[in-house]
Amino acid sequence: MPPGRVDPIRLALAQVNPRVGDLEGNAAKLTEYVERARDAGAELVLFPELAVTGYPPEDLLLKEHFLRAAEEALRHVAAAAQGIVALVGSPERADDVYNALAVCVEGQVVARYRKSVLPNYGVFDEERYFQAGEGGAVLELDDLRLGLTICEDLWTPGPPASDEALAGAALLVNASASPYHAGKGIRRELMMVQRARDNLCSLAFCNLVGGQDELVFDGHSLLLDHDGEVLARAPQFAETLLVGTVDPQAAITARLRDARLRPPVRRQLPQVTQLGRLPRPERVPPQPGDLGGEVTPLLDEVSEVYAALVLGVRDYVAKNGFSHAVLGLSGGIDSALVLLVAADALGADGVTAVVMPSRYSSEGTQSDARAMAANLGVRCLDIPIAPAMETYEAMLADVFAGREEDLTEENLQARIRGNLLMALSNKFGWLVLTTGNKSENSVGYSTLYGDSAGGFAVIKDVEKTLVYRLVAERARRDPESPVPESIVTRPPSAELRAEQKDSDSLPDYDTLDAILSAYVEDDADREQLELAGLPPAAIDRVFSLVDRAEYKRRQAPPGIKITPRAFGRDRRMPITNGYRPR
Amino acid sequence: MPPGRVDPIRLALAQVNPRVGDLEGNAAKLTEYVERARDAGAELVLFPELAVTGYPPEDLLLKEHFLRAAEEALRHVAAAAQGIVALVGSPERADDVYNALAVCVEGQVVARYRKSVLPNYGVFDEERYFQAGEGGAVLELDDLRLGLTICEDLWTPGPPASDEALAGAALLVNASASPYHAGKGIRRELMMVQRARDNLCSLAFCNLVGGQDELVFDGHSLLLDHDGEVLARAPQFAETLLVGTVDPQAAITARLRDARLRPPVRRQLPQVTQLGRLPRPERVPPQPGDLGGEVTPLLDEVSEVYAALVLGVRDYVAKNGFSHAVLGLSGGIDSALVLLVAADALGADGVTAVVMPSRYSSEGTQSDARAMAANLGVRCLDIPIAPAMETYEAMLADVFAGREEDLTEENLQARIRGNLLMALSNKFGWLVLTTGNKSENSVGYSTLYGDSAGGFAVIKDVEKTLVYRLVAERARRDPESPVPESIVTRPPSAELRAEQKDSDSLPDYDTLDAILSAYVEDDADREQLELAGLPPAAIDRVFSLVDRAEYKRRQAPPGIKITPRAFGRDRRMPITNGYRPR
Repeated sequence: MPPGRVDPIRLALAQVNPRVGDLEGNAAKLTEYVERARDAGAELVLFPELAVTGYPPEDLLLKEHFLRAAEEALRHVAAAAQGIVALVGSPERADDVYNALAVCVEGQVVARYRKSVLPNYGVFDEERYFQAGEGGAVLELDDLRLGLTICEDLWTPGPPASDEALAGAALLVNASASPYHAGKGIRRELMMVQRARDNLCSLAFCNLVGGQDELVFDGHSLLLDHDGEVLARAPQFAETLLVGTVDPQAAITARLRDARLRPPVRRQLPQVTQLGRLPRPERVPPQPGDLGGEVTPLLDEVSEVYAALVLGVRDYVAKNGFSHAVLGLSGGIDSALVLLVAADALGADGVTAVVMPSRYSSEGTQSDARAMAANLGVRCLDIPIAPAMETYEAMLADVFAGREEDLTEENLQARIRGNLLMALSNKFGWLVLTTGNKSENSVGYSTLYGDSAGGFAVIKDVEKTLVYRLVAERARRDPESPVPESIVTRPPSAELRAEQKDSDSLPDYDTLDAILSAYVEDDADREQLELAGLPPAAIDRVFSLVDRAEYKRRQAPPGIKITPRAFGRDRRMPITNGYRPR
Repeated sequence: MPPGRVDPIRLALAQVNPRVGDLEGNAAKLTEYVERARDAGAELVLFPELAVTGYPPEDLLLKEHFLRAAEEALRHVAAAAQGIVALVGSPERADDVYNALAVCVEGQVVARYRKSVLPNYGVFDEERYFQAGEGGAVLELDDLRLGLTICEDLWTPGPPASDEALAGAALLVNASASPYHAGKGIRRELMMVQRARDNLCSLAFCNLVGGQDELVFDGHSLLLDHDGEVLARAPQFAETLLVGTVDPQAAITARLRDARLRPPVRRQLPQVTQLGRLPRPERVPPQPGDLGGEVTPLLDEVSEVYAALVLGVRDYVAKNGFSHAVLGLSGGIDSALVLLVAADALGADGVTAVVMPSRYSSEGTQSDARAMAANLGVRCLDIPIAPAMETYEAMLADVFAGREEDLTEENLQARIRGNLLMALSNKFGWLVLTTGNKSENSVGYSTLYGDSAGGFAVIKDVEKTLVYRLVAERARRDPESPVPESIVTRPPSAELRAEQKDSDSLPDYDTLDAILSAYVEDDADREQLELAGLPPAAIDRVFSLVDRAEYKRRQAPPGIKITPRAFGRDRRMPITNGYRPR
């Protein structure tokens, strides 16, 4: 360690929301943030993982022309790094492809750190795209040593971070693209706290924010001291430049009294690359009281999910070039939640609701639907589906002669609605939002090309019981709730045949959701569920329904992941599957 | 090397078609093949990779209860290994999960080889599931040394196979689940020939056969001598027990005169695990002339694709519990091909065709469709879609007032057809086959929930130009072709508006397919395509259409992969994607 005192450093975390693949747009955004960071007096600005390309770029990373264009975009950002050091996440095409953090200074890329721990589980496929780097790396800014890490690198308690700390890093930086699920933010923060404490390092964690297909990145960037104290916290679900000051000397001093980072551990030579020594940019020295920065409080657990849904919808719509969404509004709780989210994401002018009563729709549900749209100031169209249903019945009368009514007729009604919404989408360029929840998707309680037809499935990963809590929370925040009370209190029904109730064919939703989260998210077996007190008959029925509905889920639109394990890229099951858990 | 002569060995390759997840069914099938192999006088029977579970089991491998059940199924198969050595592909749950080949003898699993090269590209995600083994392994049957490998292990020219050969293996065995694409079989055979020659080893390659969701495994198992001579070849696309005799002494003798597998290379100690020494089972010694086995000739390149489609349909239908399929028959070439394939896969009784003329359908296409169904002896329903179209137009008249007709009305007609097919599916339990080809899917020339609605997309990976070749080949084999000539000669049209032709909005199919295969399969850029002489305007248009249609493909049903890069698990592109190649 150097003999002199290491000066405090003012740094900026650029919690940005790039668009995957939009290299020019992203470069412009990043450039703007570099300039804002410098204007805010920061010596260093840290960007998220792969900020230049957006995350995850998936198979774009297999295209040489894309990698070339990303490198050009990175150089464009680097050109703006004048009088400030910018650490910018971008792919590196060398002998292989690396997930890298580029050190940009005086207009140039002067060094790169290569991510050394590649996640290849859950939603991650990084072994498909990247070669792993060869361990940690230390960058010196005069006498301040920074340890560089990228996302997963810091999710393991050992190297590369521990090696970097042993090599003298007093400040760890972590560039992340860490996707959201409910409750993950606080667990990640607690982990970061422990990493800071275990390594006796200050820690700067900059996370991506924004929606990308099924993923939402929640931001929640952090500046921690070596004791794990939160010096600054960026808001969840919003773009921000978080600026704060840390005192690395405090970590260096702490190491004298805390033996853990001194011999004998030191005798194991840490595996790190020395990225070189740069002069610290000229800055106004921090003033007394400058330590830390703004600490945004965390959202409660239900508001957090709601915010994730709003951001997910807003970004999917905008990033795919839409400006307006449409949904079928039934008077039930699911479409009510989707309408609330859509109106909050896009504004009341950005949504159209369509009420499409069938012959089984009650007056109550229809008038609730219309009332809710009116309360929100959302335009509401009314298109009864009976004429189309009657026509189909006539067209199929010969072929179906002698057959009873069954699910066929229920599905036809749902598909007529799907057709109408898609016709509106085609004619007016609106994005169709679907309204099915995770409990229904899990057990296949939906109609393919019917209620599941659309561009974005807003609540596909939200279990029914959470749907109720989200609506209640949204109502609580609004003194004049737009949601008619009867939407919340009426027993759930698809209204596709007379007197239909969800509870006719499914366990109650508390039981259903308990079984589902254990089976779908935790891969639990029957014994585990019985031990938890769940009824054996319901367990068997739900397992079987989940397994048999895979073919429907495979054709479902993308939607926002809010649980630890969403259907889709997160849970990859064969359709053709003879396995039946005993 | 042992001083005595190593006796010839009669071995069996069990080219089986398991069903993913159906552990009991698979165990029963494997047991039957063990018994058949012993009855055929084989000392050794080799099964494909993960034969017990089927391949790929995907996230079933993350369930402890599945792994336990697979181990039980393996033990059931092992119990049948009496008087014969069975090498059985099955997952191994130890400290981690391995993709293993179990050595079964005298009713027990006595050793296991763990796959050491895990593919994680294209359709493969093995890093998600498995820990890699630590290199090659040699099993001794008296004085015969076998080198064990699993699939990808042998796709690299070096270890583990080269280490096993250096450790004295005279016979390499390879248990594979190598999926088909057009032309792959012969390239794989040539590679195996080279592996045998490079390692101076006889080689037994046993590949899986059958359809699993989007993949078809083509079988084409092989027995080669150390000079790469094909001693026996199993048929493509059919279950078989291939029995043949090899003389490992020939490889051992060859090594005396060929210095490559002697010092100095030998001085590098090979990294192999010794799996132990078993006595060779009692057998009638091979008789003069017994060397080798049956050599099935290879299919030509078009027949091969046709056979893959037939097997893919037959297995998807049967393995998912269906016994009948239905499709819309338009009188165009695509649905003609799908009907031919379906009739060959399921029999004429196993398919229903539905002619659903619109107001734009010509008399010619309708009568061609009906004639073709009649020629094949397939039941044909006739449901004109005009009544539903008129009803929808009336229902939407107010909302659409003042708007021109556009794609909306074309899509509505396609969706009415989709609804009718799905209603038949729901009422009668038939599987809907869709008829879109890869050229259309690539550029988004299809209607979501319309012609793309269904359970299985038979020709989704077949480019239009190949569709014509497949129909021609099928016609050539049949002296009285069921396909009316005009289906082949009429210019392609969706018949969704007056006088519509595909060539109005797309380049001719030769140009389109050339651009598509370069862009989609080879990740080519604009310069590469221009160099190949393709027109710049068409390149730009096709690139843009392909990129913008990702959202439709994401909701498409599964279908058979027959190219090196199919849409789906093979090419994982973001929907939200701002990248536009320049």
